[in-house]
Amino acid sequence: MAVAKAKVPDATVSRLVTYLRVLEALERAGVTRTSSEQLAEEAQVTAFQVRKDLAYFGNYGTRGVGYSVPLLKREIRRILGLSRRWRVVLVGMGRLGQALADYPGLGEEYELVGLLDIDPAKVGKRLARGVVEPLSALEEVVSLRGAELGLIAVPADAAQEVADRLVRAGIRGILNFAPVVLEVPPEVAVENVDLVAGLNRLTYFVTQGMREEWVG
Amino acid sequence: MAVAKAKVPDATVSRLVTYLRVLEALERAGVTRTSSEQLAEEAQVTAFQVRKDLAYFGNYGTRGVGYSVPLLKREIRRILGLSRRWRVVLVGMGRLGQALADYPGLGEEYELVGLLDIDPAKVGKRLARGVVEPLSALEEVVSLRGAELGLIAVPADAAQEVADRLVRAGIRGILNFAPVVLEVPPEVAVENVDLVAGLNRLTYFVTQGMREEWVG
Repeated sequence: MAVAKAKVPDATVSRLVTYLRVLEALERAGVTRTSSEQLAEEAQVTAFQVRKDLAYFGNYGTRGVGYSVPLLKREIRRILGLSRRWRVVLVGMGRLGQALADYPGLGEEYELVGLLDIDPAKVGKRLARGVVEPLSALEEVVSLRGAELGLIAVPADAAQEVADRLVRAGIRGILNFAPVVLEVPPEVAVENVDLVAGLNRLTYFVTQGMREEWVG
Repeated sequence: MAVAKAKVPDATVSRLVTYLRVLEALERAGVTRTSSEQLAEEAQVTAFQVRKDLAYFGNYGTRGVGYSVPLLKREIRRILGLSRRWRVVLVGMGRLGQALADYPGLGEEYELVGLLDIDPAKVGKRLARGVVEPLSALEEVVSLRGAELGLIAVPADAAQEVADRLVRAGIRGILNFAPVVLEVPPEVAVENVDLVAGLNRLTYFVTQGMREEWVG
């Protein structure tokens, strides 16, 4: 029987990624034990928030002793699905797509198995991680190479059609760089990396900060 | 006297940006009135969530009548600080920085007033939005051109030093593309665009979806 679990807020998932970055940094610095207070300070949240976020998934700390850095890191990696490799296709090889294809931080977990573009002038171009193939081969590339995730870096007006094709080809999750809300079936996950959205959030918080100063 | 206001959750700010995208799309389609139900469907949240998010800022709808698209769009733009222009410096002109500099979606609100890099081979390079200048000119560029926001697209191990210099130069907000947690004073806002974090969240949700299928 499945245990009923509280729905994990999206913001908790985002913070788990931040805690993982902090734990990786602590490990590189040779630190083996940490606390919710230290994690909180590094992640710029409250210690209560850290404990609440982790409590969705289990009991990882010991009161008065804290957390083992390697154990907590391994657990968060497992929760985030990072204890395995993922095959990824990248659609759209403009400047952004090329930057993504050469992005050094993709790590061992994400393997680019296809780089696709509709522009014949880009097809055949050799990059550090592979050669650009025609968009017409998308379904074949996804199917033959067992891709599970798709990165969309095409212009906004082409993104939904690419998403539809990725979904039909069997992709389970999409990382979308186009500034549009994609419509996909509920079983397909979508994460949006909207560069301007980040700037929009930033100007919200800067404006709030200015208002607080005026109220001061 | 300042009115005590409920703290607005970060997730609400993210969703405001999504609602704005939906309203922009409705306006382009010639739609002038909408409802929390329609906004919710397009933004893939509940109508209750839409109403709750907007209620942090005021009463924008009329029961039974809904929202005026242009009015709600203008209000959300104002809340997000988009009823004015922002001057932005971009530090780090590698592939990602160059992709950002040419990103067509920055809109009218964000004006790139400086493109900076430490590499002498990149300095002087001409891009669509300007010429790359040496990192040593950062303080001068920020000060003389009145930059308020900084985009960091340098390698992870250089990001904190660049952030420190931006803060000392008077920058109010940083959009950070480097996969590190930046330490800045509380009056400076930071938004992280961690490309791998988006992938990490994505594999979390894909893994959850697979678990639900197994549980059936």
